[in-house]
Amino acid sequence: MLDSSIHHSAMKSINDSGRRGRPDIAHMFLLIANESILNREGVLDVVIHTRNEYAIKINPEMRVIKNYNRFKGLMEQLFKEGGVPPGGSLMNLESKGIGQIVKEMEAEKVILLSEKGKRKHIADVIKENSVCIIGGFPHGDFLSPVEEIADEIISIHSSQLPAWIALMEVIVAYEQKFMK
Amino acid sequence: MLDSSIHHSAMKSINDSGRRGRPDIAHMFLLIANESILNREGVLDVVIHTRNEYAIKINPEMRVIKNYNRFKGLMEQLFKEGGVPPGGSLMNLESKGIGQIVKEMEAEKVILLSEKGKRKHIADVIKENSVCIIGGFPHGDFLSPVEEIADEIISIHSSQLPAWIALMEVIVAYEQKFMK
Repeated sequence: MLDSSIHHSAMKSINDSGRRGRPDIAHMFLLIANESILNREGVLDVVIHTRNEYAIKINPEMRVIKNYNRFKGLMEQLFKEGGVPPGGSLMNLESKGIGQIVKEMEAEKVILLSEKGKRKHIADVIKENSVCIIGGFPHGDFLSPVEEIADEIISIHSSQLPAWIALMEVIVAYEQKFMK
Repeated sequence: MLDSSIHHSAMKSINDSGRRGRPDIAHMFLLIANESILNREGVLDVVIHTRNEYAIKINPEMRVIKNYNRFKGLMEQLFKEGGVPPGGSLMNLESKGIGQIVKEMEAEKVILLSEKGKRKHIADVIKENSVCIIGGFPHGDFLSPVEEIADEIISIHSSQLPAWIALMEVIVAYEQKFMK
């Protein structure tokens, strides 16, 4: 498992090194998603799309392990065995592009969060059955054709936000709009 | 620096072991607080109150280090030197009880998030100049006299929420109410 904070110099020679080796982003993201009120109420579904058209399906019931080093161990198991635990009821690895992932979610609306979007509040655009696409890479733009999939592209702040901050904005806006 | 995920068996014999050794909670908390839109807009102040009446003042300009192990290194420096960097412009250690910390913030309203509180939405009770007190311990109740300090005690969900989930609820509710 590449971790840029440990393998920084070894990673210099690999392809796309600036976009890789950040399991900490997935960890932060899942600690927020799965512990959130929205997820506790059973209305959140998380899929992580990653390199080489892999999709990681997250079981909403999974208690995300708090310790970062142990989390990396689970991710290694996931890529080695195809599931956590092997056979997979908590996390599952599937070969799937982002278009297919979104299609299977059968959402009323697909919202892409991107710096290139129009400056808007999430609460003003989100519908009850929405998919939100949030970039989880440290730098650069989406490589997948997400703009073609999106019904609306919005930017929620003038600065670049980490994935988990975008996530928490989406989650709480949704709770306030639909779960009060 | 105690870390219960590493020192679990060694910690069994110390006082209050169930309340200690969780720098991961402070790390998650600060990664959310300091990266948030609220903080980017310059209207968030974070103070961590911890054992033995220590207060850690957080500079809103601090970019919180993403790597957990390096974060623990900074916390060690903080407790050894009294500041990060030594002399302290990013984090400062002071001897101060929670009553004094809150008093110095001169807030219009002090809100305590607690399971014992009345079930309410944060958005319905928060004022523009508020202090919110969020517990950062893994189990049990506050030991400090926070109920005496609070103007209102609220519970935001029927389940026990981790500190960072309570934090994100407060932050986004505040943004939506006062910064639209």
